Amino acid sequence: MSKINIIFQPEGKRVEVEKEDSILSAALKVGIDLTSICAGKGICGKCKVIIDDTKAVNDLTYKELELLTLEERENGVRLACFTKIKDEVVVKVPEYSRTGKQRLQIEGIETPIKLNPVVKKYYIELEVPTLEDPRADSDRIIDYLHNMFNLSNLSLDYNLIKNLATYVRGADWKFTAVIWQDIIISIEPDDTTDRIFGYAVDIGTTKLAGYIVNLNTSEVVAAGSLMNPQIPFGEDVISRLNHPEQEKLQKVVVEGINQILESLKEKVGVRSKEIYEMTVVGNTIMHHLFLGIFPLYVGRSPYPPVLRSSIIINAKEIGINLHPNAKIMVLPTIAGFVGADTVGVILSTELYKKSEICLAIDIGTNTEVVLGNQDNMMAASCASGPAFEGAHIKFGMRAASGAIEKIKINSKTLDVDYETIDNEPPIGICGSGMIDLVAEMIRTGIIDVGGIFNRQLNNPRVRMNEDKVMEYIVVPSDQTANKRDITFSQKDVSQIILAKAAMHTGVKLLLKNSNIKKEDIQSVFLAGAFGSHINKESARMIGVFPEIDLDKIIAVGNAAGTGARMCLVSKEAKEISDKISEKVNYLELGIDPDFQKIFLNSHIIPYADLDEFPQTSKILKEYNNYPTTPPPRF
Amino acid sequence: MSKINIIFQPEGKRVEVEKEDSILSAALKVGIDLTSICAGKGICGKCKVIIDDTKAVNDLTYKELELLTLEERENGVRLACFTKIKDEVVVKVPEYSRTGKQRLQIEGIETPIKLNPVVKKYYIELEVPTLEDPRADSDRIIDYLHNMFNLSNLSLDYNLIKNLATYVRGADWKFTAVIWQDIIISIEPDDTTDRIFGYAVDIGTTKLAGYIVNLNTSEVVAAGSLMNPQIPFGEDVISRLNHPEQEKLQKVVVEGINQILESLKEKVGVRSKEIYEMTVVGNTIMHHLFLGIFPLYVGRSPYPPVLRSSIIINAKEIGINLHPNAKIMVLPTIAGFVGADTVGVILSTELYKKSEICLAIDIGTNTEVVLGNQDNMMAASCASGPAFEGAHIKFGMRAASGAIEKIKINSKTLDVDYETIDNEPPIGICGSGMIDLVAEMIRTGIIDVGGIFNRQLNNPRVRMNEDKVMEYIVVPSDQTANKRDITFSQKDVSQIILAKAAMHTGVKLLLKNSNIKKEDIQSVFLAGAFGSHINKESARMIGVFPEIDLDKIIAVGNAAGTGARMCLVSKEAKEISDKISEKVNYLELGIDPDFQKIFLNSHIIPYADLDEFPQTSKILKEYNNYPTTPPPRF
Repeated sequence: MSKINIIFQPEGKRVEVEKEDSILSAALKVGIDLTSICAGKGICGKCKVIIDDTKAVNDLTYKELELLTLEERENGVRLACFTKIKDEVVVKVPEYSRTGKQRLQIEGIETPIKLNPVVKKYYIELEVPTLEDPRADSDRIIDYLHNMFNLSNLSLDYNLIKNLATYVRGADWKFTAVIWQDIIISIEPDDTTDRIFGYAVDIGTTKLAGYIVNLNTSEVVAAGSLMNPQIPFGEDVISRLNHPEQEKLQKVVVEGINQILESLKEKVGVRSKEIYEMTVVGNTIMHHLFLGIFPLYVGRSPYPPVLRSSIIINAKEIGINLHPNAKIMVLPTIAGFVGADTVGVILSTELYKKSEICLAIDIGTNTEVVLGNQDNMMAASCASGPAFEGAHIKFGMRAASGAIEKIKINSKTLDVDYETIDNEPPIGICGSGMIDLVAEMIRTGIIDVGGIFNRQLNNPRVRMNEDKVMEYIVVPSDQTANKRDITFSQKDVSQIILAKAAMHTGVKLLLKNSNIKKEDIQSVFLAGAFGSHINKESARMIGVFPEIDLDKIIAVGNAAGTGARMCLVSKEAKEISDKISEKVNYLELGIDPDFQKIFLNSHIIPYADLDEFPQTSKILKEYNNYPTTPPPRF
Repeated sequence: MSKINIIFQPEGKRVEVEKEDSILSAALKVGIDLTSICAGKGICGKCKVIIDDTKAVNDLTYKELELLTLEERENGVRLACFTKIKDEVVVKVPEYSRTGKQRLQIEGIETPIKLNPVVKKYYIELEVPTLEDPRADSDRIIDYLHNMFNLSNLSLDYNLIKNLATYVRGADWKFTAVIWQDIIISIEPDDTTDRIFGYAVDIGTTKLAGYIVNLNTSEVVAAGSLMNPQIPFGEDVISRLNHPEQEKLQKVVVEGINQILESLKEKVGVRSKEIYEMTVVGNTIMHHLFLGIFPLYVGRSPYPPVLRSSIIINAKEIGINLHPNAKIMVLPTIAGFVGADTVGVILSTELYKKSEICLAIDIGTNTEVVLGNQDNMMAASCASGPAFEGAHIKFGMRAASGAIEKIKINSKTLDVDYETIDNEPPIGICGSGMIDLVAEMIRTGIIDVGGIFNRQLNNPRVRMNEDKVMEYIVVPSDQTANKRDITFSQKDVSQIILAKAAMHTGVKLLLKNSNIKKEDIQSVFLAGAFGSHINKESARMIGVFPEIDLDKIIAVGNAAGTGARMCLVSKEAKEISDKISEKVNYLELGIDPDFQKIFLNSHIIPYADLDEFPQTSKILKEYNNYPTTPPPRF
């Protein structure tokens, strides 16, 4: 039978299937978390996918006519279990068809900050106007707030003013005023001072994360995430900023942010009209696309952002479903691709006020690195790509149930001890698992420091696959969920090397340009979606960053998101973020004359100059995997 | 033949016609300034009117099918010369069918003020970004303005940012930045610093006035006016604020303001995108309706405005056709119906900084009066009605060509010397003419101090008309444009008395409540559309205000409009207007226990206590028209 390639979106995951295979079986093979309550029996109608090219699959079945609405069918919705693949096709897996079991990976460090949100509520009971006191409604409210709460320079939101007279009378002059900064943005009948929420959003190139925060307590009441719906328009920032339909990119990311919000609201019983402010972080391109700023020139040398400083807009201007007069504060960017997310990381790790030298690495599809302390900070951006998110890795997957997240290889048998998320039978490997895996593969000599498979190994787990590519069987078929070997090939290793080389180069060039030695670094903050789950020893071993004492490495999770949350609950955090944006020096990696050399040297695991990694060298020697001839150096 | 009543809008002018009369002849009879180049020959196609009730007139004629477009015909457009009246009907006269010859009556005093507009322009030549200087586009602009012009705290308008990158590159980094307050609202290729305009608007209950101002010189480059298109929704403020379709009222006034703007722009070659700010004055109801603020409660005791303080909105938010990022600053109101127009009058007359006591009277459909000086100011609003604008007066008309504006009656023959605008044959009487007329009628004994016609006069000019109402023939038919007597009846006199009584009451109650004697008043500022044309002796004689030395009375024209213009050219004027709004005390006339008494006494010309008007009494005695028995007093 002939082989056909299909692609699952938004993951961008390719899989080779047999003709007439069902889409559900294809999805299960590569660990797409598609809901299927009846396990493919064609009963539950849950495994909905969207297929635009109807000719590449079989016609709609009777069962589907029954289980899908007309509107769904017109929009290309199919049931994955009934849909047989006839030709190359792109399959979109909508969020509502996801199992939703994937680990959120949006937790970030909690950095204590004094509660002082920009949005506040005050309960008011006014005297009714009389001929002796016929003050304007606006003055009556503002005077009261001044007299009772000592608030000054207040004004009223224009949209609120339009129906203010009806609101205050409808509430019988007893109501709660919602004040954002010094603007009264809402009037609510009765005392609602205990209900006041904000929404913090981290727009990652690959993943969106959203947090509903109680602004009376700074507590996160709900958090959720979603694949960035811009992925089908381009996996990396360069392809997105070159995309001709910029308006669509803004539209889909706004829809995604609304979608997270909807699901969170429902979960915790918060209403849109109770959310008065939103803060946003993201790299420069995500920042520009979200705001609808034409981003093309940010992608062209010398990569100038259009806007650096923070900006406040009205939520309804771009269609975020919060309170009608809610504000959105987008944190400032720094320079080049180093954006508001990095400002968030610097804010939440408090790197900006450390006396000792710190390094922050925010791992993502674009990885930002910051080096310095309260006196000087320098930042750079590295195109690490989406490998750690599972893209372009045959068995790569999101951190959902059944993803292998920890790996240990027996150096003699090359057998694997592994842990999966939720202890489910393994489906694929997530980011932290891949870092473990490559570290273990080099330790045990399955690959050499160049990442090349050792063809001399006489072990059934190492084999040449049908594409004539070497691969390692991580989990044999009898243990996997899909009864299919989970493997990691030469190609997959190369993807990981590419990613780690980009990051390593960034760190090395920052050290060089800041005139700082790696020994001077007192703390390394590992941020990013899977920052909390990463095995820092493995990461150091493969050379994601220079060799630094393990106890100096601190996983901080989604520190960018924490920065956004801090700005929701603290005026001061907002002010600090503006200062951070002004203060950080930007390093354009490409202009450093050593860039090429260091980047190529970084393709060696952990680095072409093995002397820079004495700990790793020691381990390799211990396992007899230290190279007998030094690796090539540029 | 039977008589039919028809109404011309927006004047609200009723006229009785014969069945089968043409609308053109009806319009000419009552002085509606309808263009008719061919003088009713059915050739020019200029006398377009709009008729909604097609059954009340004849069917479309062949000529009209030829001269009107399909779209016009579908919208009820007819040619007045071809349209025969069959039944009672409302005829709308669109602005484009007006002769446009009416006197603008929008000139106001010129109050010198230091040129310091909120909108300014700066020409910029930037260095192109390089890898050594990859600053954000926003920073590049803001830094330059800071370094070259010492401007601080600048930010960029969000809408500008979206396409900023394209704009600056399209302009080859040489452009003009337009700054409103501290926001960069526009980027224009090349040096356009010599083109910077503002638009000041006075929204009167009956008339709109607009001024395009050169913000480099503070010179008015064009001024124009229009009947307030809200008139068909109600002639006075009370009926407008009770109108169920508030949104429509906002829409039509915005359209009117745009219409004036369009005609002015064309005349002087200014483009919308060169106008960056608009300032607006108007009484509280006009202010609220313009802003789309629900106004109902302003009309209900105790008459609290919804908004008192000044407000800034975006022009496009309500659809004014200025630069896309232009701002509208609406001046603050005071209290009750005393609105932003009064703030404008106080600003432009500089009453707020006078050491001597001054009185300002802003005559209009609603008349506002202010009494005081730098230490104390008190204001009130009087419902004077639209009589002086020509409404409800049989031969009342706007100050257009052919309007009688000055009148002198020969005390022996009762013949009339008159002057018309443009020296055209008389059609009707405008506001200043009516004040002259009533003053002359009482001087010559045609009416008594109660306003009652003297039936004993044996003079052909005084007669009982067919409705059994006494009337005075101002101009006999052989001298008039329409070969029809221009008369002034008992009813018309009553309308003028009602108007002047309202104003007089306002002034008297302000004096009483401020504890000021009329002798203490050092200046009376007569403001309002026809303020410059009014005969102050006549106005004083009929008791529009207490008897004050004539040399203290200063006509200041549209002083409210001047106030709006001052705020366009001066930041300081804006700040002062806010202070004025806070400082002026408001007097609600209705709650003064003497209100009824004084109002009724004010129905006597000049006032029930004739001793308060020694000059008028002296004139009446001179002409033997001083009453033998004192007029009734309450």
